[in-house]
Amino acid sequence: MKSRIVTFGEIMLRLSPKGYLRFCQADTFDACFGGGEANVAVSLANYGFESCFVTRLPENAIGQSAINELRRYGVNTGYIVHGGDRIGIYYLEKGASQRPGKVIYDRAFSAISTASRNDFPWEEIFKDCDWFHITGITPALSDTAADLVVEACKKAKELGVKVSCDLNYRNSLWPKNKAQITMTEICRSVDICIANEQDISDVFDMHAKESNVLTGKINKSGYMEVAEKLQKKFGFEKIAITLRESISASDNNWSAMLYDGNNYYFSKKYAVHVVDRVGGGDSFAGGLIASILFGYDPKEAIEFATAASCLKHSIEGDFNLVSKEEVDKLANGDMSGRIQR
Amino acid sequence: MKSRIVTFGEIMLRLSPKGYLRFCQADTFDACFGGGEANVAVSLANYGFESCFVTRLPENAIGQSAINELRRYGVNTGYIVHGGDRIGIYYLEKGASQRPGKVIYDRAFSAISTASRNDFPWEEIFKDCDWFHITGITPALSDTAADLVVEACKKAKELGVKVSCDLNYRNSLWPKNKAQITMTEICRSVDICIANEQDISDVFDMHAKESNVLTGKINKSGYMEVAEKLQKKFGFEKIAITLRESISASDNNWSAMLYDGNNYYFSKKYAVHVVDRVGGGDSFAGGLIASILFGYDPKEAIEFATAASCLKHSIEGDFNLVSKEEVDKLANGDMSGRIQR
Amino acid sequence: MKSRIVTFGEIMLRLSPKGYLRFCQADTFDACFGGGEANVAVSLANYGFESCFVTRLPENAIGQSAINELRRYGVNTGYIVHGGDRIGIYYLEKGASQRPGKVIYDRAFSAISTASRNDFPWEEIFKDCDWFHITGITPALSDTAADLVVEACKKAKELGVKVSCDLNYRNSLWPKNKAQITMTEICRSVDICIANEQDISDVFDMHAKESNVLTGKINKSGYMEVAEKLQKKFGFEKIAITLRESISASDNNWSAMLYDGNNYYFSKKYAVHVVDRVGGGDSFAGGLIASILFGYDPKEAIEFATAASCLKHSIEGDFNLVSKEEVDKLANGDMSGRIQR
Amino acid sequence: MKSRIVTFGEIMLRLSPKGYLRFCQADTFDACFGGGEANVAVSLANYGFESCFVTRLPENAIGQSAINELRRYGVNTGYIVHGGDRIGIYYLEKGASQRPGKVIYDRAFSAISTASRNDFPWEEIFKDCDWFHITGITPALSDTAADLVVEACKKAKELGVKVSCDLNYRNSLWPKNKAQITMTEICRSVDICIANEQDISDVFDMHAKESNVLTGKINKSGYMEVAEKLQKKFGFEKIAITLRESISASDNNWSAMLYDGNNYYFSKKYAVHVVDRVGGGDSFAGGLIASILFGYDPKEAIEFATAASCLKHSIEGDFNLVSKEEVDKLANGDMSGRIQR
Amino acid sequence: MKSRIVTFGEIMLRLSPKGYLRFCQADTFDACFGGGEANVAVSLANYGFESCFVTRLPENAIGQSAINELRRYGVNTGYIVHGGDRIGIYYLEKGASQRPGKVIYDRAFSAISTASRNDFPWEEIFKDCDWFHITGITPALSDTAADLVVEACKKAKELGVKVSCDLNYRNSLWPKNKAQITMTEICRSVDICIANEQDISDVFDMHAKESNVLTGKINKSGYMEVAEKLQKKFGFEKIAITLRESISASDNNWSAMLYDGNNYYFSKKYAVHVVDRVGGGDSFAGGLIASILFGYDPKEAIEFATAASCLKHSIEGDFNLVSKEEVDKLANGDMSGRIQR
Amino acid sequence: MKSRIVTFGEIMLRLSPKGYLRFCQADTFDACFGGGEANVAVSLANYGFESCFVTRLPENAIGQSAINELRRYGVNTGYIVHGGDRIGIYYLEKGASQRPGKVIYDRAFSAISTASRNDFPWEEIFKDCDWFHITGITPALSDTAADLVVEACKKAKELGVKVSCDLNYRNSLWPKNKAQITMTEICRSVDICIANEQDISDVFDMHAKESNVLTGKINKSGYMEVAEKLQKKFGFEKIAITLRESISASDNNWSAMLYDGNNYYFSKKYAVHVVDRVGGGDSFAGGLIASILFGYDPKEAIEFATAASCLKHSIEGDFNLVSKEEVDKLANGDMSGRIQR
Repeated sequence: MKSRIVTFGEIMLRLSPKGYLRFCQADTFDACFGGGEANVAVSLANYGFESCFVTRLPENAIGQSAINELRRYGVNTGYIVHGGDRIGIYYLEKGASQRPGKVIYDRAFSAISTASRNDFPWEEIFKDCDWFHITGITPALSDTAADLVVEACKKAKELGVKVSCDLNYRNSLWPKNKAQITMTEICRSVDICIANEQDISDVFDMHAKESNVLTGKINKSGYMEVAEKLQKKFGFEKIAITLRESISASDNNWSAMLYDGNNYYFSKKYAVHVVDRVGGGDSFAGGLIASILFGYDPKEAIEFATAASCLKHSIEGDFNLVSKEEVDKLANGDMSGRIQR
Repeated sequence: MKSRIVTFGEIMLRLSPKGYLRFCQADTFDACFGGGEANVAVSLANYGFESCFVTRLPENAIGQSAINELRRYGVNTGYIVHGGDRIGIYYLEKGASQRPGKVIYDRAFSAISTASRNDFPWEEIFKDCDWFHITGITPALSDTAADLVVEACKKAKELGVKVSCDLNYRNSLWPKNKAQITMTEICRSVDICIANEQDISDVFDMHAKESNVLTGKINKSGYMEVAEKLQKKFGFEKIAITLRESISASDNNWSAMLYDGNNYYFSKKYAVHVVDRVGGGDSFAGGLIASILFGYDPKEAIEFATAASCLKHSIEGDFNLVSKEEVDKLANGDMSGRIQR
Repeated sequence: MKSRIVTFGEIMLRLSPKGYLRFCQADTFDACFGGGEANVAVSLANYGFESCFVTRLPENAIGQSAINELRRYGVNTGYIVHGGDRIGIYYLEKGASQRPGKVIYDRAFSAISTASRNDFPWEEIFKDCDWFHITGITPALSDTAADLVVEACKKAKELGVKVSCDLNYRNSLWPKNKAQITMTEICRSVDICIANEQDISDVFDMHAKESNVLTGKINKSGYMEVAEKLQKKFGFEKIAITLRESISASDNNWSAMLYDGNNYYFSKKYAVHVVDRVGGGDSFAGGLIASILFGYDPKEAIEFATAASCLKHSIEGDFNLVSKEEVDKLANGDMSGRIQR
Repeated sequence: MKSRIVTFGEIMLRLSPKGYLRFCQADTFDACFGGGEANVAVSLANYGFESCFVTRLPENAIGQSAINELRRYGVNTGYIVHGGDRIGIYYLEKGASQRPGKVIYDRAFSAISTASRNDFPWEEIFKDCDWFHITGITPALSDTAADLVVEACKKAKELGVKVSCDLNYRNSLWPKNKAQITMTEICRSVDICIANEQDISDVFDMHAKESNVLTGKINKSGYMEVAEKLQKKFGFEKIAITLRESISASDNNWSAMLYDGNNYYFSKKYAVHVVDRVGGGDSFAGGLIASILFGYDPKEAIEFATAASCLKHSIEGDFNLVSKEEVDKLANGDMSGRIQR
Repeated sequence: MKSRIVTFGEIMLRLSPKGYLRFCQADTFDACFGGGEANVAVSLANYGFESCFVTRLPENAIGQSAINELRRYGVNTGYIVHGGDRIGIYYLEKGASQRPGKVIYDRAFSAISTASRNDFPWEEIFKDCDWFHITGITPALSDTAADLVVEACKKAKELGVKVSCDLNYRNSLWPKNKAQITMTEICRSVDICIANEQDISDVFDMHAKESNVLTGKINKSGYMEVAEKLQKKFGFEKIAITLRESISASDNNWSAMLYDGNNYYFSKKYAVHVVDRVGGGDSFAGGLIASILFGYDPKEAIEFATAASCLKHSIEGDFNLVSKEEVDKLANGDMSGRIQR
Repeated sequence: MKSRIVTFGEIMLRLSPKGYLRFCQADTFDACFGGGEANVAVSLANYGFESCFVTRLPENAIGQSAINELRRYGVNTGYIVHGGDRIGIYYLEKGASQRPGKVIYDRAFSAISTASRNDFPWEEIFKDCDWFHITGITPALSDTAADLVVEACKKAKELGVKVSCDLNYRNSLWPKNKAQITMTEICRSVDICIANEQDISDVFDMHAKESNVLTGKINKSGYMEVAEKLQKKFGFEKIAITLRESISASDNNWSAMLYDGNNYYFSKKYAVHVVDRVGGGDSFAGGLIASILFGYDPKEAIEFATAASCLKHSIEGDFNLVSKEEVDKLANGDMSGRIQR
């Protein structure tokens, strides 16, 4: 029987100018849907799991389009609640070469940020559920959203559902001190903690030595120390950290580390030509959850998760539209990109 | 010297699927900017006036793009204030044949709806100003917005600036009874009142006999009565009413009436193939203001305003991008649409 | 509980040049998916039914995209079988004014046309099923496809599932005499027969007097006679006939008739501006099935079905992406196409 | 053996905004190639003739693209000369409803307008040639171009090649009096004269009574008189006049008349929904030449030419991309525009 | 006088999603035409040769579009036969970074694969012909296609026409053992053999030592051995092998080797940023044939062929749309890509 | 108070095929406006200066669109004169990898090239003006244009306006010897001289040793010598030289040098992935002028100018649409291109 995974959070309308146009040049926006947790839900549906995404969306044609898009890629939308006035929006301008990409959030007052406790019957939602995934973005949306996440995590823990959390700090949504308090509370229910090279420093004030994200310099041992400290603090079963070396908006090095309380597993490092880097971290989380559910060993798991997210950088939109077979093939070493007929 | 006209209100980002696609089919949105008062401002700039649009916009790339678009068409944006969190949005799905067009508003909490009195130095804005134009949309946005409009109209009146108002009732923004109270207050400062075939009934509960907008039936004498009643109530210098007969989303008949307290002037009626009907009423208001400032007599004025708005229906986007020469040519009778080499 | 409807047939990749370009001008094709029975399945999902589409598709990315598209619009794809070498294709060139639209079929050897009996477990598929819908296209694809349809209809009949069939004669797929033999056998299991103004003449050699589809001349009484004859021959519970008057590729009159063995019910006639007329008949079938399942009386049913298909002509693609509310509104008389804010 | 037809003139790059956008809204231009004589050449190639287009084009990638486009549709480009600095351009803004279409010419100093006598070896070009077609546009380009046309016509006449000329007066290219002198000289070599409802009045100052092109009013007997007068003056074998009634930029009535010195033949009149009306007259000329070469009688000929040009109005671009079969079908009465599967 | 080259094979409709979209994201396909032999034919026409492409295409608008596209680029299509039911199709998803490109073939039952001996009058086709080019793809399509290729090669040989063959093994079309038998027979008539780094291994089971295409490792001496062995076996006049080092789907190194039975000539190696790598091998074949016909010496020939195919990687579509001058310039060392004004 | 800068020159319509399509593949052109001096004007408006662009444009919709585009980005267009017959055009084909980009000029007889002395009231234009910028392109357009530039420079000098000139040699517009004479005259009024790695060699026959632009080899000391020589000859206050190392059309290294008569300042060198390199030099000039007006010291100035132009390479179109903050950020060392939320 298929594993059942529930994710909870926000799905937004994403609006981005064509190609490398700047916002001020655009008279057309490519429109898709995405959000940290929804992106993970799609990854898991792609890998063949029963993936259920829970959110709240306004009852209008744009909200319905978000649901349609999730259904299209096989996500169970049965627990999405209708209500609220608007869907959150984010505008994305792609970067290129030395010009950084830009995100403008317009997600205040979105349906999920104004949801209430009664909207989500957690007991029913977690029935037969194997895994619950959340991120640090949803609690940053509003106080009620933070409460909802805390409550859901506790309930999951209580019901024996495994909980994973991607720290995903967004400084434009809340201040660091508030994030620290809330994320600390959430992390008490978390089994698998996922973070990128900056999150732990921002949220928990633990800094990897001799690394500088602005110059793309990454020091492995610094991240090993940080992972250990964090594991000690929260007793996580596993901690995974993605390590992005941003050479330019067009070229990134991408690798990751997994720490299981005993050993450190480092993935291969990929030299990535960026097509669309948004959702890179989410595709890593999706890959990691999947690989653990596949029963992969830690080394295989980190390779699968990193290969999955490496591929995401070559795919337009937030969703990582790849199959298990495609990820396995890359994780197993065929990096040539040769055409397949 | 050029006449100087000030308009005040909201400019929104408009997002519409390509061609006749429904919202649920769209993965691209055509993006432009528009709003009742901004549309009038662009019309007036096109006709060669010094046209100044006053609003509040967030200090981000999307807000800047709205300003750029106004500048592009020659509107003075010098009194636009930066502030607030978001630009209002409206989603537009074009109708076709028997399928009606649809607008979804996402304009709550927009920068202009949260503006405060201090944002706009009316005395300075109205310096050398000949005309001030507002609509019934802005006061519907929020109580503070309503206050701003009332205050601005009073100040304009006080300074001897001619005031025009397009009633423009939007039932999704406020209830009829609230509209009636506010618009009654505003209309006390108004010289020129503009309305469509439905507004007066919605806002002032005065109904044109034997007309039914759903079947496209329009009875001239009913509107004559209504205009007279309204004129009596507020002492308007002029009342203009557009008369849309909606045969289908693709075909409309379009004409208008002007009442100057003495006589009724009816324009020619145009059988319009609709390219984009949004902004039709605004283009009429723009045409009417312009024709009065050109010194046209009432018959010429209503013909100019109606021809201007007839042409708008053939133009994509909210703005009526036509010149005085083009409108004059149609108003003077060349309706053949023959190609011009 | 929701009614459950099963449809069985082919879903094809549809490739059409942009706008009104001819095939020889195209360097881009708009791609969507469609087919007589799939179109009905989508209509029924839109109206809120449990709609299950059964077919066979190749196990490649194009086949998967067809499944995704059905899921997107809420169709249950759980009984779609993987197998075969290719998905059927049809190329569509839109007509305009006096230039007719053109369809080039490339559907030979498609996965469904080479399916075998073992592919479809009918007993299981028809569990809790209320209605089974097929068309005259699938049996025209191949002898094995014809056998499958005959078998499925018999099984449905046997299990007490209501069966509807849209005659849908395609002269490029099979000759009239072969169609007559097969459709006669199929019609023995059919309860509700649906046809257009040409089908009955082509398949059963029964001609409506004084009608000429090339000149767009339609004589009501001729179709009344034909319906009666057909009802007598097969004992259908209901016969519905759509009546298209093709004035040009851009303008059609559209109405329909329903005969329930006792009375004739004629719908309103719509003057339609054609956006995309492919799937017009399918949207009628979908509307008719829905209206019967809604419990509408015959007059209401034929008005709903005709209004639904009237709206289809304004929608791009094969699918009729409208809601019950939208169809009811038109059926109840609001034909003005006025914009809805 | 195939008839061989030579046409001589200019082919331009045509730049038009997408859909119904105005010039000032465009950030993309649809690009195609066209010009009165090239359009005729393509029509004739489509009908299966050996069609040879003669011109001069600059030796750069844009000039080469024009040649490629002619080759694509089967036109013989073997006598196109390389030279000159630029290809002529015309910008086209499509009209809609009451808004007229607009053409901005940027064709001064084009390669053909600066060509010299030595560029074209007429004796060789006219070898085995059955027909030579020119229009009144080429002589309007420059004095050298006018000389070239005069010379070519004389040479054709001398060699027994049938000569047709479409008067095609363009008031932005030359004044009426100059046109009259030059066209009079050219017409002395012409066998078949083609004109629209305005040309004869503009060029030869002969006016059809009781017709007014601005109101779309066309009086048949007025054109009969004019045709007779013209025939008498130049001894033309045949005169054909197209009769456009422009109801709006979107709707035209289209018919034509042929006079063979004895009888007047009027075609059916088509109510046309305009997709792209540029090249309408050229497609008529192409249809007329073809129908004469097919050996059609005068009534058949005028019906073929009118049906051909009726279809052109439904096709994007300057070229009339239809086959003989398609034109015959319409000319023979199937005007229903029903989809063909 | 121009050299005349005949190529024989299949031209397919190629459908590819925009940019880097995956198949499942596409609602539009870029459409062009291509195929191994057709691509060579276009290259040769571009270089100024009389290039004649022979195939069989269905008599419909899509088949005609393929012919038009060949004509557009100057290919002689006079010996293309009409018949069969469908044009072959291939779907192409572009790869990026570590994600490989994907080709889905839908070419079974294409017109050329069902062609018969009578379709092609080889004696007539080879009249005045200098060169005949085929590939290993056509014989893989069907047994009748294989027979046609064998027959044509023999006839060419008999008539003294030089024969070149690109091995081009496609494992999705036929098994290796079948390929070996057929290609062995064909190679007996071949003068110039062309292959890529994988073909010889797949078809003739001769492996280059210490090379691994998956890691992009290429060992020159291994290919020298293989070339020599092959030359001995078939007595080829020349063997050329392209050497692709696939670093990722976005970056390839590209070079080639020519062996004339005496010496080995290696080209420069190009670091290529891939725009579209399909047709890379065909552009090499086209360049090689051209350079031999230009009379270039072996070193110049391999540099020309490699430069030509290097440029192909920067061009969208299957065809290598470059001129002799452009290739010469690169082959002679200007690799800077500096803009040319 | 804002500094006021005047630029004088040509603004052209730029037409470029989509993406990396070649000219011969295009049936659509992206259209924007640009030209050496207009590009500088837009840069300066972006940085917040009062930027006034002076030119002559035809009084038609295309000329008006050019004005609109300048206004959109905040340029003062009040001194643009209407007149002349055409706007200059340039066709741009983007290069990729080893394939160079191509520009085809069609700017002869443009409105500015036929302007006369009376068109521009220099005294009035230079009122309150701080800086006047011209390039070596305008004097190359025609003798009258050259006279205009000479005259304007002299007048500016006379009025104490600082004058900068970008040498910008275009070999397709005029021969080197003519350029040398005219530019020598102009340079006598110039304070700040800007050039690229080729200009000085082309115009003044002074060659940087051991540099070869075709191989991308740049020798710093060679350029130091050249700068010194040039400074000595004309007494320039500052000389700035951009140093492009063109590795391929896709990858360039980009740096620059500033010489102030005493010291040489070299900027950082950027490894640029090219999105659109047209206007790169102009964005450098704009950045340099701005940084001097900001009061930056020479090292800061050259870093700002180089960072500004580095960013330009990532932006579509001629204009460098970046803000002062964005340039400062890169100049100060954040080259990571990390996404900004």
